[in-house]
Formats: sequence, structure tokens, C-alpha cells
Amino acid sequence: RRARPVREVLFFPSRPCCIEALLAEAAEPGAPARPCPCPLPSGDTALSRLVRRLLSARRSLDLCLFAFSCPQLARAVQLLHRRGVRVRLVTDAQYMGLHGSQIGRLRHAGIQVRHDQHTGYMHHKFAIVDRRMLLTGSLNWTAQAIQSNRENVLVVEDAEYVKAFQDEFERIWEEYNPANYKFF
Amino acid sequence: RRARPVREVLFFPSRPCCIEALLAEAAEPGAPARPCPCPLPSGDTALSRLVRRLLSARRSLDLCLFAFSCPQLARAVQLLHRRGVRVRLVTDAQYMGLHGSQIGRLRHAGIQVRHDQHTGYMHHKFAIVDRRMLLTGSLNWTAQAIQSNRENVLVVEDAEYVKAFQDEFERIWEEYNPANYKFF
Repeated sequence: RRARPVREVLFFPSRPCCIEALLAEAAEPGAPARPCPCPLPSGDTALSRLVRRLLSARRSLDLCLFAFSCPQLARAVQLLHRRGVRVRLVTDAQYMGLHGSQIGRLRHAGIQVRHDQHTGYMHHKFAIVDRRMLLTGSLNWTAQAIQSNRENVLVVEDAEYVKAFQDEFERIWEEYNPANYKFF
Repeated sequence: RRARPVREVLFFPSRPCCIEALLAEAAEPGAPARPCPCPLPSGDTALSRLVRRLLSARRSLDLCLFAFSCPQLARAVQLLHRRGVRVRLVTDAQYMGLHGSQIGRLRHAGIQVRHDQHTGYMHHKFAIVDRRMLLTGSLNWTAQAIQSNRENVLVVEDAEYVKAFQDEFERIWEEYNPANYKFF
């Protein structure tokens, strides 16, 4: 029986929290928990909820992110990639080279990344899990935004909204295909 | 009988368009249309849809916007204020003083504006029409974002999501009450 569709709103700033237990459980389900030596609590926060939603991916994760510099979220994405989830990432050309960007690290890990060609900003901030659940809002995936800004992320499991964003993702993915680059 | 709840996603960049006819109809419903001398088409675009949704406000418009410099959207908000709609606007302190910001003009027109006190960014970009319809996404209300960026705005008429954002608005509105300012 299908569970009730997820409907949730996450507001930031999030209280700081340790997500090691979440990552460990996702990497090795059922393995005995090892306490993390860091001083952060591992409670229920906006960040931990966001990570949980991402880690629920089983087949695909499509990311469309203006800025991505948060190491914790990069580790979650890398973990999914290692687990065999098909990860695709679209980002903004101007921001991916900035200090602290996680894009290079994710590319290095073998994740497919595409970016725009410098006309306007690729300013979306959304993720689609298994072509079924949409996470979208104002939040760039940076530690500053998560810890200090007033931000929102809607979690929407609704076929109509998800399809609109999935179609937008496929349009952008194709438009940013390096085979279509123009050199002047 | 209630109409079906609005469910819509607007994607930007928007084709340029003239919204004079929309503003004129909202200012004087039923008045004979006067053609606008500007060269822009007045078609159905993401911007015109956004303006239509805003102009549907009858009682209240709550705005929570990181950046607001688009003159067309400022005219729509001013028009609602003149029509007796209760407009409240929350914005980010760092951005409201920048060149082209419409915040000064809206304050001058008598619209209530509150802003943060420089800890992190007030990075939301949402509007709530008549405490009933939520417009939220990645879009800052700037001409650059509307015309050049890849952006999204969800239009959601769903009591659960709207309540979450209305509660967030009221929290911020109270937190940014000038009576609560701290001076060091």
C-alpha cells in the first residue's frame, strides 16, 4: 500500500547538527551505530530532514543548484552515487569555480555535472528524488545559507508539480549538453 | 461553489511583455482598454501570470522578498495598496539600499516595510495573497532575474503549505518589529 504523499516545509536557519549517523545508516543499513566524537547534537533539524529526504533516493537524483558548497550535503550526494543511484547535477557556471564549491569534488567522484554558458544565472535550487519527490525553495546548498539565512524548502510528492520540474530539468540538461556549446 | 485550487509552476526567464493592460484593468475594472504605445507584446508570459496572481488580491498581500527592484512588480503592489489591500513587506537589510531597489518607493507610498538586523540574509522569496494562495520559489523580484535567469515560482492554493508560510511570515514580521531592535 502506498504511503500518504509527503508534504512538508523546511525552514532555515537550521540548528547545527551532526549527520554522521544518517550517513552511516545509509552507507551500511543495519550496521551497529558508532557514536560520533563531534560535539554536535544529532537531533531532528531542518538540515537532518533535508538529508533524510535525499538519502531516500533508490534510483535517481536530479539536482539543479545555483550554488553547492556545503560539504555535508556533498557527502550525502556522493554516498548515493556510490550506492548506484543515478545522480545528475546542473549548476551555474559563475558559482561552480568559487572557493568552497563542491562541484569539482563531485565531478572527481564520477558524478555527471553540466553547467550553463554564462547567459544569466542558473538560479534554480531544486532536487528531484526518484522522479517522484520534489525539494525546492530559496535554499542554496551552502553552509552559510543553512546555518544563518532565513530560507525555505518545500517537499512535494505530487505528480503534477514534479512533472513540471522534471521537464524543466530535462530541458536544461539537454541545453547544457557540452555537445551544444558554442565557441566564439 | 469554490473553483478548483490553483496549481501552477511558472518558469523564467520570461519573454518581455507589456503589463499596462493588466494594471489598467486592475485599477479601473471594466474601463475601455487604451492601447499602450510601447513596442512590447502583451501576451501570456510567466511575468504576466505572476502579475495576474498578485492583482487577484482583495484583502491582503504578505511579501517576504530578499531583493525587490523590478519596477513593474512594484507598480502592481502599489496599485493593490491604493485599492485598499493590506500590504506588508519583509525584506533584507543589505539589499534594500542597493541601486534600483523599489523598497524606498513603496515605503514612500505608505506601505509597511520591515527588515532584518544584519544577521544572515532574509533570503525567502514568497508572497501570500489573501492568506490563501502562496507564490514561492527561487525568483527574486528583479528585472535581471525575470528576463535573464533560470528561475521558478510555484503557485500553491493548499491550506497546509499556505499555513506553514503564513506562520513563518508572522514570526518574521514580529521578529523584525522595530520595537524589538537592539542597539549596541
